[in-house]
Amino acid sequence: MGEASVEIVHAINGFTKNCYVADMRDVNSEDDNDSSCWYEEILDEDLKWSFALNRVLHKGTSEFQDIALLDTKRFGKVLVIDGKMQSAEVDEFIYHECLIHPPLLCHPNPKTLFIMGGGEGSTAREVIKHKTIDKVVMCDIDQEVVDFCRRYLTGNREAFSSKKLSIVINDAKAELEKRNDKFDIIVGDLADPVEGGPCYQLYTKSFYENIVKPKLNKNGIFVTQAGPAGIFTHKEVFTSIHNTIKQVFKYVKAYTAHVPSFADTWGWVMASDQPLEIDPEEIDKRIEERIGGELLYLNGPSFLSSTTLNKTISTSLLNETHVYTEVDARFIHGHGLGVAPYRF
Amino acid sequence: MGEASVEIVHAINGFTKNCYVADMRDVNSEDDNDSSCWYEEILDEDLKWSFALNRVLHKGTSEFQDIALLDTKRFGKVLVIDGKMQSAEVDEFIYHECLIHPPLLCHPNPKTLFIMGGGEGSTAREVIKHKTIDKVVMCDIDQEVVDFCRRYLTGNREAFSSKKLSIVINDAKAELEKRNDKFDIIVGDLADPVEGGPCYQLYTKSFYENIVKPKLNKNGIFVTQAGPAGIFTHKEVFTSIHNTIKQVFKYVKAYTAHVPSFADTWGWVMASDQPLEIDPEEIDKRIEERIGGELLYLNGPSFLSSTTLNKTISTSLLNETHVYTEVDARFIHGHGLGVAPYRF
Amino acid sequence: MGEASVEIVHAINGFTKNCYVADMRDVNSEDDNDSSCWYEEILDEDLKWSFALNRVLHKGTSEFQDIALLDTKRFGKVLVIDGKMQSAEVDEFIYHECLIHPPLLCHPNPKTLFIMGGGEGSTAREVIKHKTIDKVVMCDIDQEVVDFCRRYLTGNREAFSSKKLSIVINDAKAELEKRNDKFDIIVGDLADPVEGGPCYQLYTKSFYENIVKPKLNKNGIFVTQAGPAGIFTHKEVFTSIHNTIKQVFKYVKAYTAHVPSFADTWGWVMASDQPLEIDPEEIDKRIEERIGGELLYLNGPSFLSSTTLNKTISTSLLNETHVYTEVDARFIHGHGLGVAPYRF
Amino acid sequence: MGEASVEIVHAINGFTKNCYVADMRDVNSEDDNDSSCWYEEILDEDLKWSFALNRVLHKGTSEFQDIALLDTKRFGKVLVIDGKMQSAEVDEFIYHECLIHPPLLCHPNPKTLFIMGGGEGSTAREVIKHKTIDKVVMCDIDQEVVDFCRRYLTGNREAFSSKKLSIVINDAKAELEKRNDKFDIIVGDLADPVEGGPCYQLYTKSFYENIVKPKLNKNGIFVTQAGPAGIFTHKEVFTSIHNTIKQVFKYVKAYTAHVPSFADTWGWVMASDQPLEIDPEEIDKRIEERIGGELLYLNGPSFLSSTTLNKTISTSLLNETHVYTEVDARFIHGHGLGVAPYRF
Repeated sequence: MGEASVEIVHAINGFTKNCYVADMRDVNSEDDNDSSCWYEEILDEDLKWSFALNRVLHKGTSEFQDIALLDTKRFGKVLVIDGKMQSAEVDEFIYHECLIHPPLLCHPNPKTLFIMGGGEGSTAREVIKHKTIDKVVMCDIDQEVVDFCRRYLTGNREAFSSKKLSIVINDAKAELEKRNDKFDIIVGDLADPVEGGPCYQLYTKSFYENIVKPKLNKNGIFVTQAGPAGIFTHKEVFTSIHNTIKQVFKYVKAYTAHVPSFADTWGWVMASDQPLEIDPEEIDKRIEERIGGELLYLNGPSFLSSTTLNKTISTSLLNETHVYTEVDARFIHGHGLGVAPYRF
Repeated sequence: MGEASVEIVHAINGFTKNCYVADMRDVNSEDDNDSSCWYEEILDEDLKWSFALNRVLHKGTSEFQDIALLDTKRFGKVLVIDGKMQSAEVDEFIYHECLIHPPLLCHPNPKTLFIMGGGEGSTAREVIKHKTIDKVVMCDIDQEVVDFCRRYLTGNREAFSSKKLSIVINDAKAELEKRNDKFDIIVGDLADPVEGGPCYQLYTKSFYENIVKPKLNKNGIFVTQAGPAGIFTHKEVFTSIHNTIKQVFKYVKAYTAHVPSFADTWGWVMASDQPLEIDPEEIDKRIEERIGGELLYLNGPSFLSSTTLNKTISTSLLNETHVYTEVDARFIHGHGLGVAPYRF
Repeated sequence: MGEASVEIVHAINGFTKNCYVADMRDVNSEDDNDSSCWYEEILDEDLKWSFALNRVLHKGTSEFQDIALLDTKRFGKVLVIDGKMQSAEVDEFIYHECLIHPPLLCHPNPKTLFIMGGGEGSTAREVIKHKTIDKVVMCDIDQEVVDFCRRYLTGNREAFSSKKLSIVINDAKAELEKRNDKFDIIVGDLADPVEGGPCYQLYTKSFYENIVKPKLNKNGIFVTQAGPAGIFTHKEVFTSIHNTIKQVFKYVKAYTAHVPSFADTWGWVMASDQPLEIDPEEIDKRIEERIGGELLYLNGPSFLSSTTLNKTISTSLLNETHVYTEVDARFIHGHGLGVAPYRF
Repeated sequence: MGEASVEIVHAINGFTKNCYVADMRDVNSEDDNDSSCWYEEILDEDLKWSFALNRVLHKGTSEFQDIALLDTKRFGKVLVIDGKMQSAEVDEFIYHECLIHPPLLCHPNPKTLFIMGGGEGSTAREVIKHKTIDKVVMCDIDQEVVDFCRRYLTGNREAFSSKKLSIVINDAKAELEKRNDKFDIIVGDLADPVEGGPCYQLYTKSFYENIVKPKLNKNGIFVTQAGPAGIFTHKEVFTSIHNTIKQVFKYVKAYTAHVPSFADTWGWVMASDQPLEIDPEEIDKRIEERIGGELLYLNGPSFLSSTTLNKTISTSLLNETHVYTEVDARFIHGHGLGVAPYRF
């Protein structure tokens, strides 16, 4: 019996989205109502989140981590690394649109972009929608994750095989240090900074100052995922990342969005030495001009809105004093979604 | 051994919040790390949400439903009705601030308010912060829930014993029909409209038209909780509630906020025949003038922001055609948080 | 990519046992330590049993029920019907040895056997080990279950393709009624008798009296699975089945064994109008002479032991008065493992 | 509100059993069907067992461990130490009857008994039923556990306050070493021997040889709980304990019983330098003569039966070569029920 590949076509607001593809057999029985198989994620020692599971589609393992692609009823195909959910088919677009489009749309004319991490391919996929872009470098440390995702996340196939994309397997810090080329946009798509964790070094003041900033072109913009940003979780890393970046860049904007499969609101921070102007009409105009295909989550007004945070969060951002440095690290204990080396 | 009552004082952003109070014995052992007791909520047949449990504090039962107050590690004291979580100590302020303050702050001078439901007391608590208010009627169908909450949710004690508050035990529709008095604000703090469910009748076009509207004073504002408003859940009831209200009132505003313990973004809809102007500075000024104590979640800018919805949601709101009527009901199947008669 | 079939060989006490075979890809990653996927069985509304899950191997559906073969870490391949676990690779031998070998070994010279149910094939597999047997009829109502198991439970392939086996798809009661041939042994391998359930009719006094008994040869023995037989569960059906059979047959023996994956002790009842002599040495001798291959669970002494029940159970068996009849049915409410039409 | 103590009376086979007593308030609501609170025990990394929870009754903590008494729907009051279930109200009698009565009934005239561990009080309770006994020493290391159980397990109150009982708080090895008195029976009611665990030293050959045996009177019998004894778990410690004891005592008997709340069959080993004769009629006669009150689980025939093990287990017992010594310890990895210092 051969592998029967079937494309799953999702229609959301009329937009057809080809995403993950499963190896499907016994197709007819896919929609039984047998809810006895569950994917259980231990978000924290006092909080668990369980999705009914159709199948464990694929499993792989690298020298760094275990990778699995699960088929869940509620969130579709879900990428799991070391037991932590990275990405769910049905709502990863929220995360990836929020990470990529704001900085690219704020930039006058972005041509080159460097992704730290992003081996899943979805980040590159969003980038490549921009017509102005002619060069994207994706730098991930884990060859296996890149191979696994390139093979099984067919919704990202176009991105993975795009001529504009170069994939480099290396530690992002080392890669940026050794390269001579500069970029219009640098993107941090990495695990949260956990003391002793593999990504910590890519969140420090000196990393931003000495490695990222010099590799940005004039008008260059840096953006990074910035961890959970919910009412009770935003001080785990979000406020510290924001405050650290504030030490290095002149203009800094934090913004958030609720990602259902993460069971929390998530945060991003973008920064530049040029003003980050967010005029809703101009954003919409640029989306029209620059992006092939539609965006599902973002438009001008909603992006402006996502930068206006509720009182609790904005007060915390103002009051945060902690800066990630190589020497002095605030210890993050028991942080649920943030410990997997790959993303969270 | 008698009941040892101890006040739990929470400090959030410097604001002291007296909330739920537990009957505490063996206090010292409250912060062990034994996570083997769990409160598991079946949000939907394919999604579960589990909180580590310290204690089951109190249980009661009415002719309508079972009530429990649990002490959970992550969300503090949690009120559960018929196995569905209604309210969690640590973040109920988000829900209740969003329900109450926008309509009151938009109103030039609100003096009288009628709450449909709200037996928990938290809604009344927020109302009573407004100095302009001199009369609040809370109309809940379940005497037991009111008694249980009055007795065990001591953070709401002040509200429950306020001279400004009248508590009526009745079906809200019947109560409004029989009363002669009118109100500046009418609040819907009820379970979602589920076909065949007990609250369905309080969401229909004819209910709004024939019973709510006539009981509003000139400049009166109606607001209702409007169910889950996440990317994938907003079409369960949120868009229909919004569209139904649009048939009856001239000005309608929908807004949302992420409530961590609900594991989703939640929605509210307010409406009036007078324009609902939301000038951020004016909102902040009125908060300053009218509200005793601080708000934790809302201020002018963040409220404006909460009315600017992301592209998916705003498109759905525009396109929704369904109206709740007494005859034609869209059947809501398997709606997780929406089936308990009391709230959700 | 084609289907890579690999035989799983289990060594238990030196005995090689070919059992279920999986469709295995990514073999190397099968023994990762990712325990976030679980198979959760709701044994009863107040009791759950969860096994870490490697994969959902196969799924199918019939007009009657949903079938799945899961790969679990603890219990190996597990056959699940309608969300209830029927059989686990690692310990199904306990159930099937206990069901089949006692009656066959007590019989002087068993040649013919009729299985009511047993579509899984494991029961027939145990029967065919007996050299005296030349004809086995397996009568199951569900073609799909038989096909599914024949295809995926390769450990039973030899039995499924044995010349001695006839498979009939029919209701067992109807089949026995219409047939003329008689049998040395008749086996009940069906779901527990639940009022209104599909198997109830095959546990009544009149069924045993008018249909089973007449189809037994002289010296014939009847045996049936008899449900949970634990300290607290043995009165659900076990004692009633035993008492009902006592009304019809002269000699009746109940016996039990703990089956780990069932999370309980299980029971069987065998009966005959000839004495059921269980001399341990004679049993061992017959095992030696008659059975090809080894038994894993049973020998003479242990079988005698399994018929000596603890005080609680033997007292209940003595005191039970209930008899299953077509008219008067004791209602079994909320019986966990017993509601699935196929087995339990 | 004071503490309302209510006795729970259980009738099992007509035998009235006063057991654990709860602090009960809101009594009427105790039997609601709200199954959202669960006690989840991680038996092993691939196996979980969940009981619906009514209440967390009491919590305490000692310098060694955390103690809790839970009220579960299925198993009644459950004693949990460090997140591991020790004992459940509804079936602890199986464990305690099996531990105590066989050695006492095999002994011609037992007067004095020493319990290593047993702070729960249930073991002493069974001992005190024997009219021949005039002195019992309970030696547990944890004062808090003893106090907690003495206070909250009122079913054991009579035992705790018996004149025949002396409670000593000490390490059992040190206590036996320092004492001069000898005993007719010595009982091991401790956690399983886990390498590096606190009880390991009380399972070694030299401990049995140099400390236990010299403290036994002529005709003395030693008995110990011996861990899980299921088809797949019996080689974790059961066979090693049995084999170790075989090195020291002339006559050794292993026996097992299924304990529902443990989700497994459990094992015990008794030993003596005098033959351990188990004549069923003699056992029944001695039960009649010596024991006040009834036994629920054991009688002569069922005890003989519990010593006749199935083929898998008896083969393992024969073939086990491992002996616990101070130097050479077989490492028990990831043993679920065996890691809590107190019992398992």
